[in-house]
Amino acid sequence: MTSRTQRTAVLAALVGTLVTGCTARAGSSAGRGIARAVDTALARNVILLIGDGLGDSEITIARNYHVGAAGRLALDRLPYTGTMTTYTAQEADPARPDYVGDSAATATAWATGHKTSNSRLSTAAGTGTALPTILELAQARGVATGSVTTAELTDATPAALAAHVNHRSCQGPVDMAACPSYRTASGGPGSIAEQTVNHRINVLLGGGRQRFAQAIDGGPFAGQTVEQSAVAQGYTVVTDATALDRIVAQGAAAPRRVLGLFAPGNMTLEWSGQPAAPFPGSGPQRCTEGRRSSSEPELASMARAALALLDRSDGAGASSPAAAPGFFLQIEGASIDKRNHAADPCGQIGETVAFDAAVAVALEFAARHPDTMVIVTGDHAHSSQIIPAPEPADHSPGVFSTLLTADGAPMTVHYATNVPGRSQEHTGTQIRVAAHGPGAAMLTGVHDQTDLFRVIATALGLAPAATE
Amino acid sequence: MTSRTQRTAVLAALVGTLVTGCTARAGSSAGRGIARAVDTALARNVILLIGDGLGDSEITIARNYHVGAAGRLALDRLPYTGTMTTYTAQEADPARPDYVGDSAATATAWATGHKTSNSRLSTAAGTGTALPTILELAQARGVATGSVTTAELTDATPAALAAHVNHRSCQGPVDMAACPSYRTASGGPGSIAEQTVNHRINVLLGGGRQRFAQAIDGGPFAGQTVEQSAVAQGYTVVTDATALDRIVAQGAAAPRRVLGLFAPGNMTLEWSGQPAAPFPGSGPQRCTEGRRSSSEPELASMARAALALLDRSDGAGASSPAAAPGFFLQIEGASIDKRNHAADPCGQIGETVAFDAAVAVALEFAARHPDTMVIVTGDHAHSSQIIPAPEPADHSPGVFSTLLTADGAPMTVHYATNVPGRSQEHTGTQIRVAAHGPGAAMLTGVHDQTDLFRVIATALGLAPAATE
Repeated sequence: MTSRTQRTAVLAALVGTLVTGCTARAGSSAGRGIARAVDTALARNVILLIGDGLGDSEITIARNYHVGAAGRLALDRLPYTGTMTTYTAQEADPARPDYVGDSAATATAWATGHKTSNSRLSTAAGTGTALPTILELAQARGVATGSVTTAELTDATPAALAAHVNHRSCQGPVDMAACPSYRTASGGPGSIAEQTVNHRINVLLGGGRQRFAQAIDGGPFAGQTVEQSAVAQGYTVVTDATALDRIVAQGAAAPRRVLGLFAPGNMTLEWSGQPAAPFPGSGPQRCTEGRRSSSEPELASMARAALALLDRSDGAGASSPAAAPGFFLQIEGASIDKRNHAADPCGQIGETVAFDAAVAVALEFAARHPDTMVIVTGDHAHSSQIIPAPEPADHSPGVFSTLLTADGAPMTVHYATNVPGRSQEHTGTQIRVAAHGPGAAMLTGVHDQTDLFRVIATALGLAPAATE
Repeated sequence: MTSRTQRTAVLAALVGTLVTGCTARAGSSAGRGIARAVDTALARNVILLIGDGLGDSEITIARNYHVGAAGRLALDRLPYTGTMTTYTAQEADPARPDYVGDSAATATAWATGHKTSNSRLSTAAGTGTALPTILELAQARGVATGSVTTAELTDATPAALAAHVNHRSCQGPVDMAACPSYRTASGGPGSIAEQTVNHRINVLLGGGRQRFAQAIDGGPFAGQTVEQSAVAQGYTVVTDATALDRIVAQGAAAPRRVLGLFAPGNMTLEWSGQPAAPFPGSGPQRCTEGRRSSSEPELASMARAALALLDRSDGAGASSPAAAPGFFLQIEGASIDKRNHAADPCGQIGETVAFDAAVAVALEFAARHPDTMVIVTGDHAHSSQIIPAPEPADHSPGVFSTLLTADGAPMTVHYATNVPGRSQEHTGTQIRVAAHGPGAAMLTGVHDQTDLFRVIATALGLAPAATE
């Protein structure tokens, strides 16, 4: 252990203790004063893993099904755990909460440290003012950056890191109906796809190729597709698992900017099964695994590739490899949420298990690189609940399915936040946050989602600027 | 701070770190090896607060309503937090889980360290073997004991501490239809009321006077009521708040055994309001507070009284006041669960707020007595969820109500784990556990409910015997 690492560990413990204590006393804004007092990084790297729609119920359902109730997922192994509130702000009266958040406003919370209203991305509720993001702060300090998702790269969760726009629907140059003033042709910053590419994030891996195939309507890249503008800005574009592997195999010679677009829209689901149904419900069933074609990389493979591409000791502006800035990487398991909306328990569990495999990759990396902080959480809770077996007189008024778990026991999962056949809803329950590595103790206790911004900024030593 | 207290604090931190690390690696049985290595108490006193049916959703609903989304409840202030699995065992095949627990089997988990089947109290699934409880282990070491609840003292959660019986319904001598072999007249240990009194727990405060008014059908107290048998065993019985205050005011001269029976059945609810209803739902509403008559003590008042009665430096067998054994006190907020079953959001929130006031009392006590460990958790998750505002096409198929919160914002709470008009169901989601004081760090990470037994045993120095 080098003395720098030792100092880091001591500082991590100190700040963890102080911030935890402060939070216990003062609530959600506790991290700020502490963050200002620390002008050195606790962690070289931060890996933030977001399960979209991953509440405690979704975790329990996946655990029961996949490893049994007494088994443990990779995400269960993180030593420090807390709970996190996920409410958002009302557009017309931003001081008042909306108790059920969407993925755009919740991602804005940790991306910027500010609450905003549902559908907004890193812009302020009411005013639309652009809010600086943790990714932008990291880049300003020479920290490498990456974003990986199983959704489109322009979907809300990845978008909040690198796009400032008043509506999440404005994903490509031809999708700008809700955001006319943001169009490049109007002198605006452009669609989410354009803004993401223009941020020159080192590693972008996910779906959404159709957004990047749209033609830009103004500015220096007018008439080119977003993908062409990416190449012009130094990106190497890959579209299947083999090409991604080939780039990673180049090691230190790999390109500094990689854009992986592995599906026209969202990436293919991992598992399938019978959807939940009204009484008497569907099942009992085991899910069908392995639906994804091998040409589309799994989330864990994308995570492994991103880590290999970002883990360089020759970071921008570094005077020596040991002092080189590290990286900030966000990894999203997106379709836990999407299959919960669809009341599809097998789809939901398969995506949760795939997300968990990415958590395992992150923890393996952190075991080899102890200067890495790993955070695992969700963005909001969702519909699914485990309930007793249905009876003629007593059963869910929504839709449900009985699954046969790894324990060899039946588990009934229901969805009843909306009427059968309609999209099931997010819920407002606080969710779990877990952490490993330097600074991890900051996340025990009760936090708000905006505190994640300050925790990451503190861990990466971005705090003095970040918490003004 | 005495040197004993300092040593305790160091040990607490050490064990916390070790056990947390072990849990991260090895899962739910992690505490055992560590517990065996520590033959001294970390904490003099343990206060275990159980919110019946208190999942993360119930906490969030009460916080939003009572102090606002950015506010903090007393239970939010505990610095160490983790999550806890609450599944139970199948009666016919105890190695297989039942994913939705009831309050009898879940209380048995922390009371004994063993899973059992739903409806059983501190007896093994399948065989019915009596399982020693944490209260019994504490008593064997001269640790004072207490149990406080807003339910009947014979209800499942308090019953698991001091009764071994195959069905939770066997609450009084005339309620033994499901447990004929346990009748005193059959040579059994008697009903839950009889077994509870026979345990000579120092402080018993709650409801359920009707059970204690029933006549015992055999043994040395045949023909007497359970209450009369309590008096014969040294109990002072009180039945209203004034009488309880009078006893507490006696200080060191107060009786060593107090049985408070403040209602014939469950104690009166704190708040009322419109029940949840099918679309278009009830509300918007504020709840009516203060329903409980002043002759019935609040849960916080009962907690304060129990702490005053238990906090003696003249514990049995102690050679000096400083070395005197402390106490183990369980405090249950019971009707969070009961009003959740009834789809009554105001009732549920009022009971959660009353429970939180008892948590505040426990934390105040621990602040004055730093050798006290406080644990706050639930026994299982429940139905209620926060969902978006209802629309004609999109709304819960169950029942719901819109509440106007402390933020001045509407919050829609629904119940849809059963058809409208039927009792809403428990859910199988993992729940929050939080801790303060020596040993508290043992509870970060993921635990099973049975681990609570080992954590409390370790904290009180009962571990070597307890974990055989």
